[in-house]
Amino acid sequence: MDHPGYSENKTKVIKRLRRVQGQVKGIEKMVDDDRYCIDVLEQVSAATRALQGVALALMEDHLSHCVANAIKDGGHEADIKIKEAYLAIERLVKS
Amino acid sequence: MDHPGYSENKTKVIKRLRRVQGQVKGIEKMVDDDRYCIDVLEQVSAATRALQGVALALMEDHLSHCVANAIKDGGHEADIKIKEAYLAIERLVKS
Amino acid sequence: MDHPGYSENKTKVIKRLRRVQGQVKGIEKMVDDDRYCIDVLEQVSAATRALQGVALALMEDHLSHCVANAIKDGGHEADIKIKEAYLAIERLVKS
Amino acid sequence: MDHPGYSENKTKVIKRLRRVQGQVKGIEKMVDDDRYCIDVLEQVSAATRALQGVALALMEDHLSHCVANAIKDGGHEADIKIKEAYLAIERLVKS
Repeated sequence: MDHPGYSENKTKVIKRLRRVQGQVKGIEKMVDDDRYCIDVLEQVSAATRALQGVALALMEDHLSHCVANAIKDGGHEADIKIKEAYLAIERLVKS
Repeated sequence: MDHPGYSENKTKVIKRLRRVQGQVKGIEKMVDDDRYCIDVLEQVSAATRALQGVALALMEDHLSHCVANAIKDGGHEADIKIKEAYLAIERLVKS
Repeated sequence: MDHPGYSENKTKVIKRLRRVQGQVKGIEKMVDDDRYCIDVLEQVSAATRALQGVALALMEDHLSHCVANAIKDGGHEADIKIKEAYLAIERLVKS
Repeated sequence: MDHPGYSENKTKVIKRLRRVQGQVKGIEKMVDDDRYCIDVLEQVSAATRALQGVALALMEDHLSHCVANAIKDGGHEADIKIKEAYLAIERLVKS
């Protein structure tokens, strides 16, 4: 595979991941400043949702490019890609 | 409140948050290196689980210190603390 | 313990659980009628959210009654109740 | 579409949905018998996981049949199916 599914959105994905790093760095500062547990927890929930948003965006690109191309090409590779996508969805749902 | 519930575990919490930042930084590098979607997604799931682990640890400390102390002191503050903890649990479950 | 935390809301909880059974029975009928996967999946998500809603309601009652009473009574039982609630929250978050 | 993706597994899916109904009926009985909150919550978590298991199985069949076939046929329908699958995954992850 030459390009991952997210190639066209690479800049956007990187921007989102940097924002998550900023969120987690901000949470670290809150803890360092002895901020109230519930306020810290609220930001941890927000960062978790942001990470899940990145995962869903990556999954959408993966389905519409990598999986779709493998299915168009047909053969065993298509089955592998579908099984692989399914397992990634399972990990997402359970995380 | 003088000390947040996580005071005794502050160093540990900060260490875990730094590790999550390292994970997200690593994911950013994977994307920058055009790594395969499924491999990136696996690391996003791992970082999400790590963040949830931090949230659960903060919640445990919050219940055993802040909530427990408010209940011992009694009065209206105890009800507020329980309601507040419940809402944080709800956010955690839904994130 | 004489009464579980949900005693005052028992009728409501039972009503919600019956509604979930109705939802799952409805999903079974959809599958039996060969309905489209995505429509079935949408109802499964709705039933899952409904079950989580019941869990959150039970947890709220448990915290405000069982856990709060144990903390008021103090001693070892309070620690057990907090640890137990924490483990139930962990199961909720991970399910 | 003549057959939904789960056609070959229809009996299995129905069996799993009946088991979930039995679980929820069992939880209703536990509540009716005033069983301890934490024990009830444990069963609610188990039923939630069982429902998610059904959803994941339906999703796997949907991807390998409905989505794969639409992609093989090509055209606009393929894009619709991928977008639709993505939205169902999003609902699953958020529920």
